[in-house]
Amino acid sequence: MPVGTAGTVKAVPQDTLESLGAEIILGNTYHLYLRPGHETIRNLGGLHRFISWPRAMLTDSGGFQVFSLSALRKVTDDGVRFRSHLDGSSHFFTPEHSMDVQIALGADIAMAFDECTEYPADRNRAEESLRLTMAWAQRSLDHFRAHRDEVVWRDEFQGKTQNLFGIVQGGMYTDLRRQCAERLIEMNFDGYAIGGLSVGEPRELTLEMIAEVLPLLPKDKPRYVMGVGYPDEIEQYARMGVDMMDCVLPTRAARHGLLFTSEGRVNIKAKRYAEDQGPPDPACDCPVCRRYTRAYLRHLMQTGEALSGTLNSIHNLAYYLGIMQRVRASLATQP
Amino acid sequence: MPVGTAGTVKAVPQDTLESLGAEIILGNTYHLYLRPGHETIRNLGGLHRFISWPRAMLTDSGGFQVFSLSALRKVTDDGVRFRSHLDGSSHFFTPEHSMDVQIALGADIAMAFDECTEYPADRNRAEESLRLTMAWAQRSLDHFRAHRDEVVWRDEFQGKTQNLFGIVQGGMYTDLRRQCAERLIEMNFDGYAIGGLSVGEPRELTLEMIAEVLPLLPKDKPRYVMGVGYPDEIEQYARMGVDMMDCVLPTRAARHGLLFTSEGRVNIKAKRYAEDQGPPDPACDCPVCRRYTRAYLRHLMQTGEALSGTLNSIHNLAYYLGIMQRVRASLATQP
Repeated sequence: MPVGTAGTVKAVPQDTLESLGAEIILGNTYHLYLRPGHETIRNLGGLHRFISWPRAMLTDSGGFQVFSLSALRKVTDDGVRFRSHLDGSSHFFTPEHSMDVQIALGADIAMAFDECTEYPADRNRAEESLRLTMAWAQRSLDHFRAHRDEVVWRDEFQGKTQNLFGIVQGGMYTDLRRQCAERLIEMNFDGYAIGGLSVGEPRELTLEMIAEVLPLLPKDKPRYVMGVGYPDEIEQYARMGVDMMDCVLPTRAARHGLLFTSEGRVNIKAKRYAEDQGPPDPACDCPVCRRYTRAYLRHLMQTGEALSGTLNSIHNLAYYLGIMQRVRASLATQP
Repeated sequence: MPVGTAGTVKAVPQDTLESLGAEIILGNTYHLYLRPGHETIRNLGGLHRFISWPRAMLTDSGGFQVFSLSALRKVTDDGVRFRSHLDGSSHFFTPEHSMDVQIALGADIAMAFDECTEYPADRNRAEESLRLTMAWAQRSLDHFRAHRDEVVWRDEFQGKTQNLFGIVQGGMYTDLRRQCAERLIEMNFDGYAIGGLSVGEPRELTLEMIAEVLPLLPKDKPRYVMGVGYPDEIEQYARMGVDMMDCVLPTRAARHGLLFTSEGRVNIKAKRYAEDQGPPDPACDCPVCRRYTRAYLRHLMQTGEALSGTLNSIHNLAYYLGIMQRVRASLATQP
């Protein structure tokens, strides 16, 4: 899932995303709650209509962004008080409020409000964090079930409503992860995510946690690993059975001039590309590689031109989506 | 002509420009000379190939940009010494050097090196400036004729080469303008531009200068008014017989949130558009007006998203190009 934080996958127009084959994009609840506000988006018919994206969308719970972006956050059993990174204004998020905001946004998939355990965290801290996440999961689910019918587009889609996914936390402790997964499955969410990974831990640990949790999750529901990863990671996880992933990496790296290619990473700012007439990736069929040279992309970076972020992002997204398309194709032909 | 200063019409991909019907875009010699350098562009096959723009291009002479952007410029009969606005490095432009740079860039149309007379300028200053412009026009033409065969794509296009346009200056003095036009016509350029307008003078004066000079210029060659203007101006000048115009206004205004519409100017940042579900321009059929709302465009501005500049620019360019398309259609059906 390309990440469209504030209602736009940065620098990439929606029709381009469609033509690249993006079937679902992510919006960040924290950002959209602050600007333009979830009530505004509800008044405008929900997030799909607001940003003109007819395909699927997912919103996160706001929890991770609250923890990573906001100042002066204070966590209690009830919820999280935090200050906006934009203007310092004070806000209070509870599981119930996160559900209200996400129902107003109206993405196809909403996420339970969780606490993302930091890394490293000792066992006591991980247990305490997990206790909070599991209590908040139940409260999220209860509130969501009571209000899911309120989504603004319900009547337009034969009474269909949103889906709610639970998030498996537990730090880097496999028994806590197992315990969390089992408890969430009993609650019967519409899908399950593995959160709290790619937070600074070594990659073997990420892999160990996914390998531990994934087999526990129901195969007939989507299984989503949050916030990963590099191209080889997403391929590896997809082949292990992960159905969904999201990451800002392809677009954020693109804006900094880092291209993912079949020949490895290309730092397009490098002087050696100044007169390189080859495409960014000789093996890539995306609209950028078909049309532009490395020399031109380097020039756009050097001059700080807006088109740089657009073209680099289009290529990186095409590269990521291409990996997933190949994985899907190979799974489809497996006996 | 949309303006593509540094080899990109800011924030708009080339395929979008094509689909909007842009037949010719402008590149700024001063910017491209500094970055990535004209020799680099020549090595890469010329400007068309470098930026992947198969349609027509025009480069200015660099003169206007030297006067408006660079520091410590010093004008002599020979040329202009100036410091780069980027790094303060010292450069010397002569008519011959401007031709060499423009031949290396290889646009379809190159412009004679001129001195743009500032406004207001007294008669002595305007006469002196005009003397320089006319001497430089001859030197530009001589050097261009001697070297036009060196354009890098010559063999690819059956020996065709670039065109060189002369620029009518003369400040706001109609007799100086006439004198300049007559002298340039004797030199026999491939086309003629009226420069030194839209430099701060009242609009009636702009109009008076165009009305004075235009009838003098050969009708069988392109007549180009440089650096104009607002939507009603370009329509007015086109109906007077002007064949070509360029202006940064549609794209620069777009990046600042100013949209040109059939209902007048729309400052898309205004709070009253926060929940406006209408298209930017109800009468416009461009890809932005077909897909996005004023509320969404306002949100993109508010959040400083890159997509804002892209979508606003696409609409404004569509609006400008639409004016010219309608003028052309109405001229074509005149008896």
